[in-house]
Amino acid sequence: MAHIELPAGLPGIRGPLAFSPATTRPIRDLTQILLHDPNTLSPGERELIAAYVSARNECVYCDSSHSATAACHLGNDESLVAQVKRDPDGAPISDKMKALLAIAGKVQRSGRDVTTADVDRARRHGATDKEIHDTVLIAALFCMFNRYVDGLATWTPDDEEIYNAIGERLSTAGYSQRLAAG
Amino acid sequence: MAHIELPAGLPGIRGPLAFSPATTRPIRDLTQILLHDPNTLSPGERELIAAYVSARNECVYCDSSHSATAACHLGNDESLVAQVKRDPDGAPISDKMKALLAIAGKVQRSGRDVTTADVDRARRHGATDKEIHDTVLIAALFCMFNRYVDGLATWTPDDEEIYNAIGERLSTAGYSQRLAAG
Repeated sequence: MAHIELPAGLPGIRGPLAFSPATTRPIRDLTQILLHDPNTLSPGERELIAAYVSARNECVYCDSSHSATAACHLGNDESLVAQVKRDPDGAPISDKMKALLAIAGKVQRSGRDVTTADVDRARRHGATDKEIHDTVLIAALFCMFNRYVDGLATWTPDDEEIYNAIGERLSTAGYSQRLAAG
Repeated sequence: MAHIELPAGLPGIRGPLAFSPATTRPIRDLTQILLHDPNTLSPGERELIAAYVSARNECVYCDSSHSATAACHLGNDESLVAQVKRDPDGAPISDKMKALLAIAGKVQRSGRDVTTADVDRARRHGATDKEIHDTVLIAALFCMFNRYVDGLATWTPDDEEIYNAIGERLSTAGYSQRLAAG
């Protein structure tokens, strides 16, 4: 049971998002810009960062939702997503993405852990300042989401089909208030 | 030196906020709603939550800025703010605020650490569901801000006067794009 009385039947973050419409509008806008709007990092790459950080924060709802969304963007390759979360450096992704995930992993622990060497590595593999910025902000955003979802003890479904449906919806409709049903 | 090339001369979060105007608009709106707009928790109480979480994340810029802002809201009582950050349960604040800060402290570590007992304590001292929600979201938001600021190695001034000016501005003008100079 959630720590506060949330609208019934909504999994994970959808409960608090429905509980607090005023804060939900800017939260959705920020997420839409960072994860779904055009960017030199693909939506699949950005969802991988979200899933990786959520897995490290052990937020089962966010991890499952954004892993499913990443998989939808990446040709339904669920095993790739699992491999990236387990061992990004060993996964078949670009060297740039490996370096950006290393930065995201540091940010998940503490922003203070990101070193010049981490950033130099990303830049050496072609990452732009904007891509480094967006990686840091996406990782930081999911440190917020994971705490919002778990700090209120929201409902975490254990039915994989629910997450597949979430991934399908988020990968196509995105996050903005106007488009997404929730 | 910051990890990416940020507009010159802007301390802390103001660098990345100026670097990325698209994401800054919703970030400012969310912060304005949570910290400055009318709420049953006073702006001073909400700034205390922000300062407490930032101190625990060792984000010197956010800690200094929001401690100064909290002090401005609380009759310039800097020693009260310092005491709250050091030992909230021993500080001369309401039992409700002590309970909410205990929740914020758990959220800072992990949302999963918040217990039913933590929430029951807050409710016993009069906290509403919305106040518990807002406390969790403010604490989570500052886990984002602290990582955004430190993950990009932004400029942290060591001149106390700069933070006093920030506190003065934020406590009066707030956070919205329209009002705040940055």
